[in-house]
Amino acid sequence: MDKKRKVNAAILIIGNEILSGRTQDTNTSTIALWLNSIGVKVVEAKIIPDVEKIIILSVNELRKKNDYVFTTGGIGPTHDDITSMSISKAFELDYEIHKEAYKILESYYKPGEFNEGRQKMVWMPKDAKLISNPTSGAPGFIVENVFCLPGVPSILKSMLGGLKNSIIGGEPILSYTISLRTVESEIAKSLTIVQDKNNDVEIGSYPFFHAGKLGVSIVIRSENQSKINKCSSQILEFVNKKKIEVVKRD
Amino acid sequence: MDKKRKVNAAILIIGNEILSGRTQDTNTSTIALWLNSIGVKVVEAKIIPDVEKIIILSVNELRKKNDYVFTTGGIGPTHDDITSMSISKAFELDYEIHKEAYKILESYYKPGEFNEGRQKMVWMPKDAKLISNPTSGAPGFIVENVFCLPGVPSILKSMLGGLKNSIIGGEPILSYTISLRTVESEIAKSLTIVQDKNNDVEIGSYPFFHAGKLGVSIVIRSENQSKINKCSSQILEFVNKKKIEVVKRD
Repeated sequence: MDKKRKVNAAILIIGNEILSGRTQDTNTSTIALWLNSIGVKVVEAKIIPDVEKIIILSVNELRKKNDYVFTTGGIGPTHDDITSMSISKAFELDYEIHKEAYKILESYYKPGEFNEGRQKMVWMPKDAKLISNPTSGAPGFIVENVFCLPGVPSILKSMLGGLKNSIIGGEPILSYTISLRTVESEIAKSLTIVQDKNNDVEIGSYPFFHAGKLGVSIVIRSENQSKINKCSSQILEFVNKKKIEVVKRD
Repeated sequence: MDKKRKVNAAILIIGNEILSGRTQDTNTSTIALWLNSIGVKVVEAKIIPDVEKIIILSVNELRKKNDYVFTTGGIGPTHDDITSMSISKAFELDYEIHKEAYKILESYYKPGEFNEGRQKMVWMPKDAKLISNPTSGAPGFIVENVFCLPGVPSILKSMLGGLKNSIIGGEPILSYTISLRTVESEIAKSLTIVQDKNNDVEIGSYPFFHAGKLGVSIVIRSENQSKINKCSSQILEFVNKKKIEVVKRD
């Protein structure tokens, strides 16, 4: 039996540059892996343009459906950074200078360098809780269950660690991967039988091509290690019977 | 004046492995860049799990809102490949053996190798139009405005070229990038003025860190080259005045 309840999150990637294909999103994977490790499962991700109406609608939809929402992008100093204002409108909160954020950036920059552009970054929804930014100073912020992070991957990464105490996760989601020297069609039927016998475990099958050879990784995911072990031995049973080579287990 | 109407698309990435963070999605960027080149703008992308109900709801929502929908993932031979069946249900079409697809795979594999697992890949929505797969045989398919492609990036890439005649695009979306040796806060105000003067052009500002140096790329996007040129000279005007170094223009 799982001791804790399941905790879900959605990710909202905000930025025209992702939808145009110019920039490859890596933040979804970064956030999802980190959330998994603290027992939060990402159940949906959405990529939307820098359009106020769409940001407001998406945030309001996702925050009602999920325990947590993580937004990335649009909190910098330029005209296309409209996330903070849009989040204020989504929550019907005043969009104003955040005094604590102002102090942080005022002391972060050299005297005279905290200019008009940079001051835009301290405008936030009223009474937002700050997320500390060890890389480039300008904080992210939290309103209720919505966490607003920057789009630059290295900065975002550096900010996640500081969030641990703001999130109440469930059991960490564990996973076990069995990589086989085979093709999917050879194991499809046997794998279906294992999945049918273990309905509450997530079993994924992913073909790979590595060092000139084809293979399949079977990924077993659950909050419960003994359920993973059970599935894993059922899989290894048919794998051995079929004389398929196990390339890696981790 | 734009001669053709604007054509929009949504991308639906189907797969637990993307939401868990295990696999980094690259298909969104691949599809978006290709669609741009034929005059289709991606206005939304969504990443969802391999759950029938969610696939059906998402496909039905997106296909009504957009000219085209591109799905990736879930059309392989294993138990977690449920896209074809879910699309059938979304369109209320029978899920059945596609005779043409059967013939293609029957002749693709060596005698005796077209086994039960592989035969699953020819089950599709009734009367679906096939998308040819030059890499690994198994075709994708089209139902009305929904295009279903595989999740493996190299296979997906090889299938896009064959789709050109199935899509009616608008004017190709052109873009021009000016990369500057500066920080966003230095140009934020001037850039806002240019954006305000050119409301129908999309101007994005993206900080970068390359070879140990900070910079900002300004990306100007429009279907209209002369509008891009106009914006570009307005931007270069303030850049020159501020004595900011132009690193690259392309």
